[in-house]
Amino acid sequence: MRIVVLAGGIGGARFLVGVRAYAQQTGAEVTAIVNVGDDVSMHGLRVCPDLDSVMYTLGGGADPERGWGREGETWAVKQELTAYGAEPTWFGLGDKDVATHLVRSTMLTAGYPLSAVTEALCTRWQPGVRLLPASDDRLETHAVVDLDGEQRAIHFQEWWVRHRGDVPTHRFVFVGAESAKPAAGVLDALAAADVVLLAPSNPVVSIAPILAVPDLREAVAGGPAPVVGVSPIIGGAPVRGMADRCLAVVDVPCTAAGVGGLYGARAGGGVLDGWLVDSTDADATVPGVTVRAVPLWMTDEEATAAMVRAALELA
Amino acid sequence: MRIVVLAGGIGGARFLVGVRAYAQQTGAEVTAIVNVGDDVSMHGLRVCPDLDSVMYTLGGGADPERGWGREGETWAVKQELTAYGAEPTWFGLGDKDVATHLVRSTMLTAGYPLSAVTEALCTRWQPGVRLLPASDDRLETHAVVDLDGEQRAIHFQEWWVRHRGDVPTHRFVFVGAESAKPAAGVLDALAAADVVLLAPSNPVVSIAPILAVPDLREAVAGGPAPVVGVSPIIGGAPVRGMADRCLAVVDVPCTAAGVGGLYGARAGGGVLDGWLVDSTDADATVPGVTVRAVPLWMTDEEATAAMVRAALELA
Repeated sequence: MRIVVLAGGIGGARFLVGVRAYAQQTGAEVTAIVNVGDDVSMHGLRVCPDLDSVMYTLGGGADPERGWGREGETWAVKQELTAYGAEPTWFGLGDKDVATHLVRSTMLTAGYPLSAVTEALCTRWQPGVRLLPASDDRLETHAVVDLDGEQRAIHFQEWWVRHRGDVPTHRFVFVGAESAKPAAGVLDALAAADVVLLAPSNPVVSIAPILAVPDLREAVAGGPAPVVGVSPIIGGAPVRGMADRCLAVVDVPCTAAGVGGLYGARAGGGVLDGWLVDSTDADATVPGVTVRAVPLWMTDEEATAAMVRAALELA
Repeated sequence: MRIVVLAGGIGGARFLVGVRAYAQQTGAEVTAIVNVGDDVSMHGLRVCPDLDSVMYTLGGGADPERGWGREGETWAVKQELTAYGAEPTWFGLGDKDVATHLVRSTMLTAGYPLSAVTEALCTRWQPGVRLLPASDDRLETHAVVDLDGEQRAIHFQEWWVRHRGDVPTHRFVFVGAESAKPAAGVLDALAAADVVLLAPSNPVVSIAPILAVPDLREAVAGGPAPVVGVSPIIGGAPVRGMADRCLAVVDVPCTAAGVGGLYGARAGGGVLDGWLVDSTDADATVPGVTVRAVPLWMTDEEATAAMVRAALELA
């Protein structure tokens, strides 16, 4: 059994812990195709927040309380950068994290594609899941906002980390997506998949940038494997993160049905065959999509594996 | 009064503390022209050990015991790089130090010359002395050695830090020196100098690479200001560092007279007018050069300032 998961950062990472647990019980192979729209260059370092969240979480090196970055992190580099007055000062580059970015940036500069860099980093972390960036090409999520009296496009990290999404926002754009190609291995994984799962990640800024790569979207929407999404919204609120703010920007209700409708049925030009919602949202419907309700709180690995089992049954 | 000092790293930094003390007492202006032959790229970061030793020492941020790097340094980045198996593992990149290299590397990548980068870094450190790299161009000291049964050129840092100089060594070469130009400000500083001092730095791998820049050497050797060197050798041994190993490579006796002879008299194609040696070496002579003996132990700022005063009297 081959499972492919489209995933963002922290929510995707926690979901993948459950997918891996399920796979270990059943001998399934798991490939995660991870959002790169959040990737950004800071102080000359290439930072891939979603890939790192997944890698650290699956590799046992993530900070379990903060939810992002490394356990036991220290901040000497950041303090020194601040002492130099080096912009930006609002982005948290931990010391341990910096080493990851140094290795990545050195390899990228040497000409390796991000997919090969990710594989190299994973030889240390042994995530137990194959991690692929959605694309090896530049693909950055920007937010078009009103700032200082004018309309400007700012990088998603600036929108998210610096402004906490609390700035008038017109839309998100995925810079480079139209010409981006799926990363090495992505199309093969999708072609060989028995099922494709959409992790309960932010639909607007985690899953949408992945599906904004034309050939990747076509391989999901037109591929042989059934596609089942897991709702990131429970009872009208995001499980974590700022999906509510992002959904408001694209005028989609912050409900399980709203997000299901955003993804849409394959038959209607969307990507979904099935949509897994929380028991609280059992009355949700998505035209053309089979909806099933089960508990969706990822309280621990076993609860998450049970969600995965339900998603695969739905598939 | 305008004083120009040619300097390497740690020995140069300590000497410059005395020069600055003298200058503060007398209102003199000090420009330090610092060796860049030790500069190296590690993990994608541009590291300038001599410029940083001088900047940290004069700026009050140096580790006083270790003699290099930052006070209160931590090593999370290095430990993580080792965990990734990232080569080289033998070079000590401290966390605080990494921030300096990030700022520098980002500015260099953006197109600023090293002299402008150094000036920017010094706005934080306020060294009280104008710091100029010898050149903004690539100039790297390599050692030609016998390693693994073959003759190879290795970067000076590899020779010094990894092998502790303990490998059969034929010679040093200053890669790029012939085509390197003096950094912005260097020739103006030398043309306006009332005196040029050679710090008691390693003559073979700290001062020689500076003087290997043809236009810089010409501005020193053919310039209007008297040139006085301060011996880094006292009683036949280097005050610190591995000058003895380096002198052996170039077949120069590890004595005050030997180093004075290596620099040579201006009249004979060298650079010296005066040569300051320690009282222990009062019998040293250098053909065509005025030699004077005073205590040369840089035990504290005042003792070092007294050395500077003696050097200026000799000039």
